[in-house]
Formats: sequence, structure tokens, C-alpha cells
Amino acid sequence: MTLKDARRIIAAAEEKAEQIGQPMSIAVADEGGNLVAFVRMDGACLGSIDISINKAYTARAFDIATRDLAAYAQPGGPFFGIHASHGGRVIIFAGGVPIKKGNVVVGAIGASGGSGDQDHAVAEAGAQAF
Amino acid sequence: MTLKDARRIIAAAEEKAEQIGQPMSIAVADEGGNLVAFVRMDGACLGSIDISINKAYTARAFDIATRDLAAYAQPGGPFFGIHASHGGRVIIFAGGVPIKKGNVVVGAIGASGGSGDQDHAVAEAGAQAF
Amino acid sequence: MTLKDARRIIAAAEEKAEQIGQPMSIAVADEGGNLVAFVRMDGACLGSIDISINKAYTARAFDIATRDLAAYAQPGGPFFGIHASHGGRVIIFAGGVPIKKGNVVVGAIGASGGSGDQDHAVAEAGAQAF
Amino acid sequence: MTLKDARRIIAAAEEKAEQIGQPMSIAVADEGGNLVAFVRMDGACLGSIDISINKAYTARAFDIATRDLAAYAQPGGPFFGIHASHGGRVIIFAGGVPIKKGNVVVGAIGASGGSGDQDHAVAEAGAQAF
Repeated sequence: MTLKDARRIIAAAEEKAEQIGQPMSIAVADEGGNLVAFVRMDGACLGSIDISINKAYTARAFDIATRDLAAYAQPGGPFFGIHASHGGRVIIFAGGVPIKKGNVVVGAIGASGGSGDQDHAVAEAGAQAF
Repeated sequence: MTLKDARRIIAAAEEKAEQIGQPMSIAVADEGGNLVAFVRMDGACLGSIDISINKAYTARAFDIATRDLAAYAQPGGPFFGIHASHGGRVIIFAGGVPIKKGNVVVGAIGASGGSGDQDHAVAEAGAQAF
Repeated sequence: MTLKDARRIIAAAEEKAEQIGQPMSIAVADEGGNLVAFVRMDGACLGSIDISINKAYTARAFDIATRDLAAYAQPGGPFFGIHASHGGRVIIFAGGVPIKKGNVVVGAIGASGGSGDQDHAVAEAGAQAF
Repeated sequence: MTLKDARRIIAAAEEKAEQIGQPMSIAVADEGGNLVAFVRMDGACLGSIDISINKAYTARAFDIATRDLAAYAQPGGPFFGIHASHGGRVIIFAGGVPIKKGNVVVGAIGASGGSGDQDHAVAEAGAQAF
């Protein structure tokens, strides 16, 4: 995941967020789960910063869309409590999506600032631009 | 959000808390989510300190009353798990209210020490004094 | 340490800061080291928030002015390393002063935003108003 | 500090880093110390992520270049120990620079990945592009 890749991913995500009309924070992490690039669109709420970065982290840490992780992380589910692990870096709601080269996860994108569906759609648009 | 503004907001909130007969901690944050002023009324429990400050932070971070955020943050809800983000600074029960200038959020108030309804009423009274 | 006491202490400290012409954050803690009241004067830097609160905490935690603790906390000193304890809440430079009733420490004040000498002078002015 | 501003600042800083031949992480924060944009250039070390973000935070929190804060934060200096405050977010070596509009600090930039002089030069180049 080069910075050029990350910028292309963010540009696509940003375009989607603009189409939706919902400003967001967007973060891209590499294979190691470490941040490569981040933008907070004008008007995105402050809380979206930490959450977008950690959605990207989570999607790479578990190689799963955070929307799907949510299902496992509810009370009674097999991973209930996982949101308290990793010093609070695990986000268990929609908006984090792994980025793949073929079948191999090479990074992830996280989007935050809208509803779960909006965040996921924006992250997905970014992931597809890789 | 000047200190003078924050003091006026706190005075109104404090008056409401006295009417209710429930001592509280009351905090006001600015546009950046940073603390401007804080008081702990005599008799307010120690746990209300951190919670009032972080309710103000949360209400500004997400531009939403924490009472409303609570609905989204329950198990099965779209933001379940958000309380573990931001190093534990996100409070997902009533008592945090954004402060607006027209339609723009310029800060927030957090109240803690009573029931959820009491805390919200006190925060609301403060917000209206801006 | 009632809220009324804390407000009187803060008013005196604030007056001193205005005389000096240096906006500050000012915090008062009680016997338990827990925050009673806090103000950030307009123009005080954001970093002064955490530091003033924790100067008050430190001055009560060790019943010593943080200016004096500084001497013990230097490399080679008997308490070198203490600043890393308490999760980073121990501040080892001037601006925290215990508040006494006779010989008994009943709280503390912390001031931050200026030079060490300025911060100490403001905290001292507050402490003397108790 | 809009995203457009932050991107212009980062572009100038990145160009400087390329001239120097030293890949870096570069972060821009707004008036409230909150992250607006971040890039990690290809080849910048992983440790530069946290440090660049927190250099930007520090430069805004104290309205000072972190290179200058360093002088005050050495053993025996008036702010020795400050690096342990704010949960470890205060960075006391070169590479963080406040961004001003006239005399008012409206944000900050942090650069990390090279020597102190290199980091400062890159941050300075970014700040001047505002």
C-alpha cells in the first residue's frame, strides 16, 4: 500500500461521501494496520477522526469488514467484548473494509461521520478504487 | 465559547440542579472539545467529575445529545461499542448536550450526578443560557 | 473544600493572572485530590488544561508545591521518574500549591499557561485566598 | 483550517521532504488540536506516525515550535516532565510548528521521520504554505 494507492482510495471514498452529501473522516491503513493517509472532510464531526482510523485498523486486524464483525461482537455472540481489547482500537460497527490484492488483505479503509450504511458505502467505494 | 459564556451556561445549569435538589458536576467544552470551565457542586459524587467532562466532550465530538447517542449505542444498535473508543471518553447516556450558535455547534455542556433525566434537564438548561 | 471556597480561590488566582497579563488555566482539587472547579481564561493555551488540573492533583497527592517537587524529580534526584507514575498525572514543575487549614492540607490549586514563576505566583495567590 | 488548507500545507511539506531525500509522516491539526489530514510517505518509519500527529498536537497545545519546547523540557529546565503529561501526546523534540493567521494560532503541523533539523525544516515549509 503506497501513499499513491492510499490517496487514490481516499479520493474515491471522498467522491462517494460528496455524492451522499455527508462529510466524513477517511483513513487508510497498510498491511501492518498502520496509518498511511487520513483526511477529515470539512464538516465531519470530531469524533469521526479516532473512529475512522480505528475502523481501518480493525478491518485489517481481523481481515473483516467491521459491519460483519458487529454481528459477532453483540452480547451473546462469539466475540462479545472484543471492542474493549486493543486499548479501545477495535470498532465494531460499519465503516471499515479490508483492501485485497486477489485474496490477500494488504490494508484497509475506515470511514466515519454518517450512518453505518453511509460509512460502509464510502469505505467500499474507496476499497474498490485500489 | 469564552469563559464568560461558559460561566453563564454553568450558572444556569447550577440553578436548575438546585431547583431539582440534586448536586451535580457540570462541564463546558469549546468547539474543539476542550474544557473551558467546570464545577462540582457540594455533595456531587466523585464519579460525576470524569463523566460530566466527557459528556461535554462526547456531545461536541458527535454533535449530538448523549441521550440520543444512547439509543444508537445499545447492543444491536448501529453504534454499539462506541463507548470503548476515544480512550473511554465517549459517554453514552443522558447528560451531554451540544451548544449551538444558529445551526453551528460551538461547544457542549455535560452534567452528571443525578438520574439520566435530571442530568439531561440540567445540561439543557445550561445550553439554553448560551 | 466547598465549591464556594474553590470559586474564591480561583477568583484570586484569576485576578493575579490578569495583573501579570498572562491568561491561564486554573484548577482546584479537594482533600481527595479530586477536581472541584476549573476555568480556562480566554487565550490560555490548550495544553494548560491537563497540566493545571494535574498540578493541583500532584500538589495534593504529595502535599508539596510542584516547584519543590521539581527539585527531587530531576535526574539523579531521589524521586527521578515520578512524572511517569500515576498515568502521567504527576507534574514536576512550578504551578501547583497545596492549600492548608492550619497545618493540614485540605486541597490544592494548579495554574498553567505562563512561565514557572508566573504559574507559581498565580497558584500562590489563589491558595492565600482560602 | 479547511481540508484544502491542510492539503496545501502537506503538499509543501512533502515537497521539502523530497528535496531533502528523507521520507516522513506529516500531520496537520486544527485550532482545537484535532487532526485534519495526515500522510505517511513511502519509506517513512512506522514510529513517525504517532510522533508526527502528536507533534502537531503539541505545537498547537502550547502554541510553540516543539524545537523550542525542547529547550524548556530538558532536565533542570522549567518544563522538565511535560512529556509525560497529556497521556504521552506531548512531543518535546523538533518537528512541530504552529500555523498562524496573523498573530493567532489556527492550527499546527508535525513532521517526523528524519533528524530534528530535517523534521523542523519540513514542518516549517508546510507552515509557510498556509
